[in-house]
Amino acid sequence: MTTISKTHETSFDKNILNTLEKIAGKKNIISDREGLYAYAFDCAHIPYSDKNPCVVVFPQNTLQVSEILKLANEHCIPVIARGASTNHAGGCAPVKGGIILHFSRMNKILEINNKDLTCRVQPGVIVGELQKKVLQTGLFFPPDPSNLAVSTIGGGIALSSGGPRAFKYGTFKDYVLSMEVVLADGTIINTGAATVKNVTGYNLTQLIVGSEGTLAVVTEATLRLIPVPETTNVLLAYFDTIENAVDAVSAVINNHLTPSVVDLIDKKTVQTIESFYPTGLLCDKEAVLLIEIDGDNASVEHQQKKIMDLCNQYGAKYIDCAHNEEQRAKIWTARRSAFGACAQLAPNVITEDVVVPRSKISELSKGILDISKKYNLITMVMGHIGDGNIHPNFALDLRDKKQRENFEKAKTELFRLAVSLGGTLSGEHGIGCQKADFLPLALDKTAMKLMKQIKNVFDPNYILNPEKML
Amino acid sequence: MTTISKTHETSFDKNILNTLEKIAGKKNIISDREGLYAYAFDCAHIPYSDKNPCVVVFPQNTLQVSEILKLANEHCIPVIARGASTNHAGGCAPVKGGIILHFSRMNKILEINNKDLTCRVQPGVIVGELQKKVLQTGLFFPPDPSNLAVSTIGGGIALSSGGPRAFKYGTFKDYVLSMEVVLADGTIINTGAATVKNVTGYNLTQLIVGSEGTLAVVTEATLRLIPVPETTNVLLAYFDTIENAVDAVSAVINNHLTPSVVDLIDKKTVQTIESFYPTGLLCDKEAVLLIEIDGDNASVEHQQKKIMDLCNQYGAKYIDCAHNEEQRAKIWTARRSAFGACAQLAPNVITEDVVVPRSKISELSKGILDISKKYNLITMVMGHIGDGNIHPNFALDLRDKKQRENFEKAKTELFRLAVSLGGTLSGEHGIGCQKADFLPLALDKTAMKLMKQIKNVFDPNYILNPEKML
Repeated sequence: MTTISKTHETSFDKNILNTLEKIAGKKNIISDREGLYAYAFDCAHIPYSDKNPCVVVFPQNTLQVSEILKLANEHCIPVIARGASTNHAGGCAPVKGGIILHFSRMNKILEINNKDLTCRVQPGVIVGELQKKVLQTGLFFPPDPSNLAVSTIGGGIALSSGGPRAFKYGTFKDYVLSMEVVLADGTIINTGAATVKNVTGYNLTQLIVGSEGTLAVVTEATLRLIPVPETTNVLLAYFDTIENAVDAVSAVINNHLTPSVVDLIDKKTVQTIESFYPTGLLCDKEAVLLIEIDGDNASVEHQQKKIMDLCNQYGAKYIDCAHNEEQRAKIWTARRSAFGACAQLAPNVITEDVVVPRSKISELSKGILDISKKYNLITMVMGHIGDGNIHPNFALDLRDKKQRENFEKAKTELFRLAVSLGGTLSGEHGIGCQKADFLPLALDKTAMKLMKQIKNVFDPNYILNPEKML
Repeated sequence: MTTISKTHETSFDKNILNTLEKIAGKKNIISDREGLYAYAFDCAHIPYSDKNPCVVVFPQNTLQVSEILKLANEHCIPVIARGASTNHAGGCAPVKGGIILHFSRMNKILEINNKDLTCRVQPGVIVGELQKKVLQTGLFFPPDPSNLAVSTIGGGIALSSGGPRAFKYGTFKDYVLSMEVVLADGTIINTGAATVKNVTGYNLTQLIVGSEGTLAVVTEATLRLIPVPETTNVLLAYFDTIENAVDAVSAVINNHLTPSVVDLIDKKTVQTIESFYPTGLLCDKEAVLLIEIDGDNASVEHQQKKIMDLCNQYGAKYIDCAHNEEQRAKIWTARRSAFGACAQLAPNVITEDVVVPRSKISELSKGILDISKKYNLITMVMGHIGDGNIHPNFALDLRDKKQRENFEKAKTELFRLAVSLGGTLSGEHGIGCQKADFLPLALDKTAMKLMKQIKNVFDPNYILNPEKML
């Protein structure tokens, strides 16, 4: 246990390890060197620091979380809450060492309330599992991060994750009604209420959602559910230019249509998907729109026809509309393979996440390709065009110094571009440690000062996920 | 200018008045005794204190707001932002005297962006006016507080106001993307970004929305708009018991239907409406559901049929479905007349606002009638049953000491009941000074302490809307 945070001059010693074992049970603790190494990274696998965590604890209940935080706070030991670590910005990387609170053993769906349209869940519940479970009672939890097969509710709350369906349905923040959270000093509090409307005191719930585990540790959440749409269909529309695709989307929206998903996939991404996981996508068009429509049967049919007409009117070269479940699944499989396919191109794939007002998508996409060319990077552009959220995937080898430097320069230009277009640094992946240095680009000085003061109110010893976001 | 706050020991003297006149212009200031009296109350017209404001200022722009706040902060003078003062909980009452910042002259719609589906507005814009304006470009701003013909965007943000359509569309908080706000010390900051998704730093926007002007003064907001639904229809379903009506609503939701409005009106309210503004409502049924459906034509027709079938199945005695615009308008006129009709019954009508999980609506309604009987109060129950938000209207004479005492007792029991049912004190009217004493019922001690510390971060001299909420 030699990895000790420099700014947290405290002895993470045998005594503390013993106390943690007493609190959580020996079998719920990892403290061997090799074991700890596995928890030093997030999904981007970038070495943000040379630290491993000092210990990984798998709490079983809120009381244990409270006792662990009390102990950590007393000894100024960093505490990093962790779910499936599918994030891309280093949000769960233990850059100062410390205790990883791993929530995979607090993974129960405690209640699905069919009358109130709510559910109560622990943070370790997997998003996709919750969706399947609530579907069995005719309900729908819309947020759909691409990694929903493994990512957890706790992670979704930490980043206010979205996904393709955010266009119609919003992100995690729109579904968290109330939470049980543990503060840095171990105090357990409840925020909000299990009601859809609530203006009773300041909105601590929304302050904590999206705060990347820097203000409190979430141990339970009551989530809003909605009735599941009767039917869903999906289509792909191919365009010669990204501009045409953007114009088609504007036309769809201006014609009172609200698809559930409006995603953009560029040619390079399509080609990469087809190289590794061929599903029959057309590879010669500059832009593909993936549009999903949901609602009752009559409405879906009506919307689909109108959307196809509009896409044709705005220059679609070909439209591939699913006619059955198999075709729908095939289209979604192609879309979901994008990250995996890009990962075949180089040792590292870094997925960025910038967001701009929708009307600036063409400019942003063009700018990304220009930047990419300038710095000689392999870049695939895709994202949730409907809400202005683009994820460029950069395929590179981080061991190569030149590539690394080029990527850093490209990233800086990308962030500047997004902000200059009226957008911001992150739509749904968060700031973590990867973007922390860029925060002043997007936020004014006084706003950042307020945020730091708020952090200080919640966590005066600065133990919760240090070096992240602010 | 003798009305000086006791806790703000400062001289609100001729010099300050002169400075305010220099900042905002003489014609934008009210300082005569009679003029000031008109700004001592909110819509409930309850004398929360014996204070009038010391001065009412109508700022023309953000810079003036900033200068006024700088001055007020320096001299520890309370500042109360005010819109149309349609609130019911004393949120805009100047209980400590001070400066009223009246936003009726900052009432411009600065931009409607058809491509980004956003608009930029000043706080004095009237909600109904904004809705009309965005409708002209095929867009929709859903929040619909009952007083939308007069209430302002600033007020809606202060309280995260909702209205009947909140069931499907949420409240103000779901539409505020970013804001320009002035802090207590006069600093102007921007929160959020004009993008639908954003996890860049703590969510100051959502912290300030619903904070009743106690954290900052909003001077501009960028709001999210959505495409306007193609068509809308409305129906009334009459039931013998409130329980039957609640069961019908559950059945509607469990059958994957999402009406835009699911309101409940009880017999007493219907009778009162019919006594004063007759529109042909049936007066002999215990509960009426007002259900509005929107979407594309095909979907509305489909949903309407299903909803009527389900209402019949769950014991509806009669269903009155609008067949044209005139009939739709008539039903909404009846619904919107409720408060005015109640106001005919006694010198005061106090509209309460509690919220519970939807499954507890029957219990809450029964409880309200029991409490009302116990304290001999004329009470009409109505509200947004779809999201568990009930507004009992109490008609009484506040000059009558006994009635006043009874009402105070009834109110206390009402709040206790709502909280005991898993609900909370306010869904959309806020805490103001009317409910501030009851906050500990709904919030735990540590959560309140955090809120007070947050208040202290934003407003260390405690000048922004003092004695409200916390």
